[in-house]
Amino acid sequence: MIRIFVTGGTFDKEYHELTGSLFFKDTHLAEMLRLGRSRVDVAIETLMMIDSLEMSEGDRALIVGRCREAAESRILITHGTDTMVQTAAALAAAVIGDEPRSETVTRSVPGKTVVLTGAMIPYAFGSSDGLFNLGSALSFVQALPAGVYIAMNGRCFNWDRVRKNRETGVFEAV
Amino acid sequence: MIRIFVTGGTFDKEYHELTGSLFFKDTHLAEMLRLGRSRVDVAIETLMMIDSLEMSEGDRALIVGRCREAAESRILITHGTDTMVQTAAALAAAVIGDEPRSETVTRSVPGKTVVLTGAMIPYAFGSSDGLFNLGSALSFVQALPAGVYIAMNGRCFNWDRVRKNRETGVFEAV
Amino acid sequence: MIRIFVTGGTFDKEYHELTGSLFFKDTHLAEMLRLGRSRVDVAIETLMMIDSLEMSEGDRALIVGRCREAAESRILITHGTDTMVQTAAALAAAVIGDEPRSETVTRSVPGKTVVLTGAMIPYAFGSSDGLFNLGSALSFVQALPAGVYIAMNGRCFNWDRVRKNRETGVFEAV
Amino acid sequence: MIRIFVTGGTFDKEYHELTGSLFFKDTHLAEMLRLGRSRVDVAIETLMMIDSLEMSEGDRALIVGRCREAAESRILITHGTDTMVQTAAALAAAVIGDEPRSETVTRSVPGKTVVLTGAMIPYAFGSSDGLFNLGSALSFVQALPAGVYIAMNGRCFNWDRVRKNRETGVFEAV
Repeated sequence: MIRIFVTGGTFDKEYHELTGSLFFKDTHLAEMLRLGRSRVDVAIETLMMIDSLEMSEGDRALIVGRCREAAESRILITHGTDTMVQTAAALAAAVIGDEPRSETVTRSVPGKTVVLTGAMIPYAFGSSDGLFNLGSALSFVQALPAGVYIAMNGRCFNWDRVRKNRETGVFEAV
Repeated sequence: MIRIFVTGGTFDKEYHELTGSLFFKDTHLAEMLRLGRSRVDVAIETLMMIDSLEMSEGDRALIVGRCREAAESRILITHGTDTMVQTAAALAAAVIGDEPRSETVTRSVPGKTVVLTGAMIPYAFGSSDGLFNLGSALSFVQALPAGVYIAMNGRCFNWDRVRKNRETGVFEAV
Repeated sequence: MIRIFVTGGTFDKEYHELTGSLFFKDTHLAEMLRLGRSRVDVAIETLMMIDSLEMSEGDRALIVGRCREAAESRILITHGTDTMVQTAAALAAAVIGDEPRSETVTRSVPGKTVVLTGAMIPYAFGSSDGLFNLGSALSFVQALPAGVYIAMNGRCFNWDRVRKNRETGVFEAV
Repeated sequence: MIRIFVTGGTFDKEYHELTGSLFFKDTHLAEMLRLGRSRVDVAIETLMMIDSLEMSEGDRALIVGRCREAAESRILITHGTDTMVQTAAALAAAVIGDEPRSETVTRSVPGKTVVLTGAMIPYAFGSSDGLFNLGSALSFVQALPAGVYIAMNGRCFNWDRVRKNRETGVFEAV
């Protein structure tokens, strides 16, 4: 069983046709998994529905707490891309007691496998990368050893080896 | 660098608007990777564009040969779902000298990581599982040790532990 | 109130993911009108769900009969493109007593406005012309005087002034 | 030949994946007409690319001027829905010298047929009404006599007989 925590982000943004602006309603995760004909055993839970630029320390503490308490050892988090790396660091410190170090050591840390993912284009819009990213993150969370990771652009990065390049929108190794 | 071999299958089927029937033209793999904003280093090569029910032993031998000769140690194959398991078995025998055995042993076999994937609905149609499967397979092929695998429905199966359930269209463990 | 008769055709073809072939299930007309946010008062009725190449004289007689009996004076018919012109001719003869003649005269014939439309790509597939054609046909059927017309490619043709060019898939004036 | 003037509006809004906001780039009109397999002879010209709430009197004067000068007698305008009725009134006064009056009289006014249309959901997003509206407006502009009209929700209203209901997003008769 894999726990999926939804926090909002571009993934779940929708277009409000009366105001002409973007907003959050419900998560599209279940619909996306149906579209992907996923047969992975998951439990989806929405923790919040916000833009990650508006994520407070309290929000982040909530995410960390829920990951720590979760009975599942494999956790997928959907998250806005702008502060995804920051949340990953909070998770690494709190959930697996991880400090920046070599990948070899990190991977031997006992504990949970937590993978964060997001999207550059809302799923509800035509040309979203969301379904690709979800397939990717759901696979990495099954295959990787304990640790905190970011799965974006088809790649998976250890939490302390990645940054979002704001000029290109691409996650890259550091 | 990951080698992607395209063999056709539902993934790449298109609707021919003059004849009203399904046919193969070019692969959509590159377009799908662009949509997913993939930054994984890949080389795409089309070996054939056929329905896997029409795949001959010669076709299968070609696929095996190209996997064996490939310089890359990580290979993704897009394939029709109907005979995907059969091709996986041919690859296991020829590429990694694998025989049905326990998963633990299989994973220790030195050699290449080969992941086959496909789709139940053509990518060109609205509600395809293709993008999800591609994200999934591309992730498993990066994360898993040497072996031959089938990535479908968000899951990854060792080549000798899976079958396609023809009543449900779902790949399931055996 | 506009009567919509559904007869099948490419409009409503779907992909059967277990057999890998095209088939008919239910019409997508109501869903398409919702997507278009249509507020036109319509009554949708499915007469048959077939490829127009398989339409028998009996099927055609049924369509003609239902148009003649309909209480509404404005009727839209979704139809496969291959024999759309043939059905339009049958309707012209039976419903409005029309014979090939000058457009001026045709338009003065008292009776019903019947517009046939279809699609080159199934609505269920990504790149369908169906929604455009439906918007077009629904508009022509409201705006035009009595007569039998074919609305395709954004244009509207009198029933006896059009043919489908099978090389290009385009309806053109004759 | 039908002249199409593009002014922006929801029709052409896109999602900016680096800023996470909506913006205008190029019009999608040509792509939409291709998707609809339109064979109507049109000339597309972009006058501005703005939200209609930001349309100034100068912008409106520009639209009116271009309609008056256009060689074509049939003109389609894509426009944001919020002030579409206002622009239609400006056009009625200036282009066809129309004052609010009975429909019968309006239709006999010699001059041009001008149809305004728009969308509630951007075309670039999955579930847009744009293609339906374009098919509809393009058909009404061919079929209707001189006058200024708004084509939305599958219906066509004389310019002085319509308002946008801001609670429902629907154009309705007044």
